[in-house]
Amino acid sequence: MKVLNVVKIGGNVVDNPDSLERFLKMLNLMEGPKILVHGGGVLASEMSAKLGIETIMREGRRVTDLETLKICTMVYAGWINKSIVAALQKIGCNSLGLCGADAAVVPAKRRSPEPVDFGYVGDVNPAEVDSGFINSLLGRGITPVFAPLTYERSGSILNTNADTMASSLAIAMSHHYYTRLIFCFEKRGVLSDFADEESVIPLINTGSYLRLKSSGTVSAGMIPKIDNAFSALSSGVSEVFIKHWSEILVNGGTMLKI
Amino acid sequence: MKVLNVVKIGGNVVDNPDSLERFLKMLNLMEGPKILVHGGGVLASEMSAKLGIETIMREGRRVTDLETLKICTMVYAGWINKSIVAALQKIGCNSLGLCGADAAVVPAKRRSPEPVDFGYVGDVNPAEVDSGFINSLLGRGITPVFAPLTYERSGSILNTNADTMASSLAIAMSHHYYTRLIFCFEKRGVLSDFADEESVIPLINTGSYLRLKSSGTVSAGMIPKIDNAFSALSSGVSEVFIKHWSEILVNGGTMLKI
Repeated sequence: MKVLNVVKIGGNVVDNPDSLERFLKMLNLMEGPKILVHGGGVLASEMSAKLGIETIMREGRRVTDLETLKICTMVYAGWINKSIVAALQKIGCNSLGLCGADAAVVPAKRRSPEPVDFGYVGDVNPAEVDSGFINSLLGRGITPVFAPLTYERSGSILNTNADTMASSLAIAMSHHYYTRLIFCFEKRGVLSDFADEESVIPLINTGSYLRLKSSGTVSAGMIPKIDNAFSALSSGVSEVFIKHWSEILVNGGTMLKI
Repeated sequence: MKVLNVVKIGGNVVDNPDSLERFLKMLNLMEGPKILVHGGGVLASEMSAKLGIETIMREGRRVTDLETLKICTMVYAGWINKSIVAALQKIGCNSLGLCGADAAVVPAKRRSPEPVDFGYVGDVNPAEVDSGFINSLLGRGITPVFAPLTYERSGSILNTNADTMASSLAIAMSHHYYTRLIFCFEKRGVLSDFADEESVIPLINTGSYLRLKSSGTVSAGMIPKIDNAFSALSSGVSEVFIKHWSEILVNGGTMLKI
């Protein structure tokens, strides 16, 4: 089975033109078919502030009212997505920017307003992702670049967590490929000591994850990412890594194993 | 040869949710493969104003500095493009939003700063449009929805007049299809009396166009549109119409003929 890399980058890389350019050059050097999923929350919050719209967070997640949805769509699917696509074209990587509504590729269900109303936020069922369409792009040598937006069939764009978007895409593509999911961020991996950048935990399995959680070693912010990783592994994804964005071509980071 | 409709709608339709919904329903009823190109200048100017960025026009066209390019990319490729795609999905029309950088489909050349510096503005050579990729989407039953943005191979997104985008796409697709290009706007066609909505000129050919221009019957704003129409006709497009957006399914409007 051919290897497919699904790479997720967060808003902090996207927000820095030099980092982004370095990252995209490395991505382009990655062999074989690949999919990029980007965030952009930092830039969306900045744009909200400029437009005088308050960013509301509940339980660490953005509440997406209609005005915020408009900003997220502009910033994620507009500015960030197309800047990445143009930058990839420049270095010879043929890419295509997508949100979930495009070609009906990632439908979602609007999250129930109970117990917490997050507004226009969608949850993805990986079985509904149109992996055939994505595969047809990969077959043409095109790298799909996904903004973290989905849509409900009744018509609205929905905001979706970029980690969830990446793991849903990886799960859907695992029917066609040996799929490796790489969550990139600003640390070198999951750290056993938050203050020590070198304290990367090389391997986390379900057993050690329970211990890391109960001892409080993994932080609250890291838990959804690791949960996403294990959900991907238990649904067909072959390998999941959490690592620094500058290390996608080299060993290192934290490997997750069931 | 199969018929392909290339339909261009302006910012005024896009700006009004009710009009847009009505228009998209009609577009969906149009038989056979189709391509939609949208503008959005009104919304871009509004967003510029909200962000305190001055909209500068020279010779009736927007000057696109880097800040304005960012706004155009957000508004055109983000908000407008994805709203149209989601609205089309809702009514069962599978569509895919694109700007010129996506899949390298519409490369452009940045316009020379002489005699007028329009900034990040691109001119398209229809021979460089990747009609094969567009055709592959049409073959999958997908309606491509184009934002009026292109890119230069050196990496930048470029702002491109939506009429020019539509005529370039129509010319490129005319190798594969009997291509009909429809410019939709808020009038029922080219009017012989600007004050009389019913004074639609049913047919303009190159001879009558010269007379209409010299008599001052066609306004300055209409001239680039008609020039685009004739350039499309002389480069392979079979039919060009200028008509009201609510009349795409019925006869009427102005037909252009060489």
